[in-house]
Order: sequence, then structure tokens, then C-alpha cells
Amino acid sequence: MAGHRFSVPRFEGVSQEQFIEHLYPQRKPLVLEGIDLGACTSKWTVDYLSQIGGRKEVKIHVAAVAQMDFISKNFVYRTLPFDKLVQRAAEEKHTEFFISEDEKYYLRSLGEDPRKVMDNFLIQVTGKKRVVLFSPRDAQYLYLSGSKSQVLNIDNPDLAKYPLFSKARRYECSLKAGDVLFIPALWFHNVISEEFGVGVNVFWKHLPSECYDKTDTYGNKDLTAASRAVQILDRALKTLAELPEEYRDFYARRMVLHIQDKAYSKNFE
Amino acid sequence: MAGHRFSVPRFEGVSQEQFIEHLYPQRKPLVLEGIDLGACTSKWTVDYLSQIGGRKEVKIHVAAVAQMDFISKNFVYRTLPFDKLVQRAAEEKHTEFFISEDEKYYLRSLGEDPRKVMDNFLIQVTGKKRVVLFSPRDAQYLYLSGSKSQVLNIDNPDLAKYPLFSKARRYECSLKAGDVLFIPALWFHNVISEEFGVGVNVFWKHLPSECYDKTDTYGNKDLTAASRAVQILDRALKTLAELPEEYRDFYARRMVLHIQDKAYSKNFE
Repeated sequence: MAGHRFSVPRFEGVSQEQFIEHLYPQRKPLVLEGIDLGACTSKWTVDYLSQIGGRKEVKIHVAAVAQMDFISKNFVYRTLPFDKLVQRAAEEKHTEFFISEDEKYYLRSLGEDPRKVMDNFLIQVTGKKRVVLFSPRDAQYLYLSGSKSQVLNIDNPDLAKYPLFSKARRYECSLKAGDVLFIPALWFHNVISEEFGVGVNVFWKHLPSECYDKTDTYGNKDLTAASRAVQILDRALKTLAELPEEYRDFYARRMVLHIQDKAYSKNFE
Repeated sequence: MAGHRFSVPRFEGVSQEQFIEHLYPQRKPLVLEGIDLGACTSKWTVDYLSQIGGRKEVKIHVAAVAQMDFISKNFVYRTLPFDKLVQRAAEEKHTEFFISEDEKYYLRSLGEDPRKVMDNFLIQVTGKKRVVLFSPRDAQYLYLSGSKSQVLNIDNPDLAKYPLFSKARRYECSLKAGDVLFIPALWFHNVISEEFGVGVNVFWKHLPSECYDKTDTYGNKDLTAASRAVQILDRALKTLAELPEEYRDFYARRMVLHIQDKAYSKNFE
């Protein structure tokens, strides 16, 4: 792959004040090491979780591969008692399974993956993950379907189908138990669990709360100003649609140049 | 230059009906040969023009080179009696001159070059021109300033300054006396006179007249639907401007994808 690759920087022993004053304002992903997460990193073993969680039934995603595809939906929904799920998820090979003896399990507590309008700490309590992030600046290279990239096999992308993907700058990190990854709002992330583990996401609002959709508990919706802008844009496009194709195409391109000139960041990092 | 080059197709002995039915709807430049233009092609000699035009003073563009640059304005305005102008313009080298003995003269009767919202016949009555055209589809490679390309030296462009210009498809033709070039609305054209000559442009409206700005005698203004669309777009951008830079940039890029999806022609010829 021709694209640029970067390691997500790691910082050890950063205080809350240092983070807020020096790191947070840069709006770039970073890994914090050695944050005191309490007893969970050692306590949340398979046995402990099974015991605490009990037999309450949970709805899980089951897939043949580690990479869930939320566009083509390469997974099935199944139900298992929580303790059973934890035990199965921690196995290398399964004797009891839904699809195959190598199947992977994924439980998320909030149902839908929160969209990326909020800032996020991904706290790796136990286990290992590999996370690859892409800047919102590179959205045009990611072949979005809604807010998700269609390019799932990021390590071996189909460049005939997704030629621009090679231009996307790739920020990569490996998370081990105790690591905290800061994912700024709008950054795309592609996560692979490398072993059984528990991650906890903490989301918060970076902007004043009036910027966010009030009906939006989980941060799934676009910022209100952005939704309004797109609605107004749709009115502009309706006007343009009165013109024959060649004129509409020409003026649409002029509108794009206008947006690029007026609203794109001049800061091309 | 790496770009694609095409010859503008030439058609001989095409009737009005054939043109309107088969050629005009393709909305591509073409040269009509052998159209009966009346006596002008033989009659409009230097002597005849001098005699008919007389000594009436006319305001002309005078430049050291054949390519007038209407962005950087590489020319000066001067006044000459019409007969004097015609004689000087027909000379190889000038004994009387404003700038240099090789200076070029250009007289246009309508003042401003009409913008490209109307269809156009460029009728080459006498003399020779080389015309290079670019499709409105390639506007994004032409580094527009207003409706004009900043790339003037199209035969030897500064690709360090204008790297995308090499992607623009170039349509070229040489016009001799009697040729009629059809320039569809919105097509960019770059004209070099290769010898003294007279061209007559005939503009007409391709779309129903309510599509055009009524205050716009010379076709200088954008189509009304396009002007309205850009005004509405400006309101959308004003809304987006409420957001901090990183969010504004992200949603502006989403708006661009939206325009490309909704309003760009899917016909990528």
C-alpha cells in the first residue's frame, strides 16, 4: 500500500491537567499509558465476569471473521447467557458454536455504535486490540456509506475498487490492558480484537451542548448546524435540478469549488 | 503534456436540418465547412474594410504577444481610426507602433467577452485562427478565476503551478476563412489568431428564455437557477461557519460528496 502510515503517539504518566492543557487541544488520537484504572484490569477475568454477569441473556454479534462488516452485515445475531458468552469468547476453538469453530463474538452494550460526533476514550481494560484510525480530513478517500467506510479489509484493500484508499493516512496503535486511546470526534476507527478482552468507551461532548441534537442520547446524529446546512443545500440542489444535465453538472462543480474555497480548512495537516 | 488531445470534428455540406437534428443535440464543438456565408469571405479585404469602416475611432487592445491575458491584463487600451487599425493589424512588422514592431491588435465590438452561458457560432470570415476548447466537465482542471482559466500558455503550461491542467482534455481545431465553429454553452475556448482576419460571433439561447437573467443583454450572467442555487448554498455555508474548523471542514467535505452524488452527471464522457 502506498499510503502514509503513522504510529499513534503514546504518553506515559500524563496528568489530567497536562492532557487537558497540552494534548486534548491538538485533536489528534493518542494513547495514554499507566492511567490508574483501578482494580478492573486485573479483576475482570473470565471467571469473575462469568460470575458477576450471571446467566442473563444477551444479544450478540457472531461472525466467521474478526472484522465485523456493518455495511454488508457479515454477522448473525444470536442470544447466549452472559456467562456462556464470556467463556466462549475466551476460547481459541469452540466445541459449541453457531457458524464455525473459529467464530468470533461481539457484545456491545449500547446497541448501535455511536456515531463520531463525540470525543471518545476507548479504555482497554483487558485483552488486546489493534486500532487503525483515519483523519476526518481523509474522508474523501474512505468510500463512505453513511458514516462508515466500505473499505473493511484495510490491510489488503481492493485498490481496483477503492483506488483512492491508498491516499488515506493510516494511524495505527496496539492496545494492551490498561491503555486508554483518545479518539477525537469525527475520526474513523477500525478495530480488531486480537484476544478476548473488555473495552469500555467513554463519550463526551467537546462542543457546547447546544451544538448537539437534543433528541440524540447516544451521539448518533449530526451536529445541528451540520444537519441544517445539509437541508439548506438540498434546497439549492432542488433549484439546480431545474436545469438540463450539462448545465446542472457545470454549476454543481462550481458549487463544489465554492465550498472548498469557503469552508475547507486551509490547514492541510 | 500528458493530457488527452482530440481534433474537433469537421463536417462538410451539412444542412440546417441535419445540424439541428443530429449534431446540435450532442452539445459538442464541431466545425462546419462549406457553409454559404455570402460574399463576405472574399469581399472583406483590408482595402474594403478600411474604405467601408472609414476613420471612425475605435478602442483596441494592444499586446506584445498574440495571447491576450484578461486576468493579468498583458495589454493596453489604445485608440486608432478604424482604417488605420485594419492596415496595421494586417502588417507583419509595424513601422508605427505603441509597444513594439511585433505588437498585436484586437478589436471586439461588444466590449466584454460574453460569458459562456449561450451557444455560439464563431464564423471565421477571413484569416486563420487556432482554437483550443475544454469541456465544462473539466472545469476543475482549469484553475478558473471567475469564468476564465488562469492557464494561458496552454501549449507549455506551468505544471508546477497548475498540476491538474494535464488532466484537462484538449479539443483543437484550425479555422480558415469560411469555417464556422460551433461552441456549445459553457465550453472554454482559447483562441490565437494566426493571421489578420475577421471573425463574427453569433450567440443564441439554447434553453427557454426564462432560464436566463433578464437584465443580461450580452449573456454575461449565470443562469437564474444557478445564481439562486449559489445564493442558497451561501446560506448553508453561513450555518456551517458556526462550527469550529475541524467540524466545518468535515461537514463541508460531506456536502461536497452530497453534491457529487446528487447533481453531477453520471455520464462521464
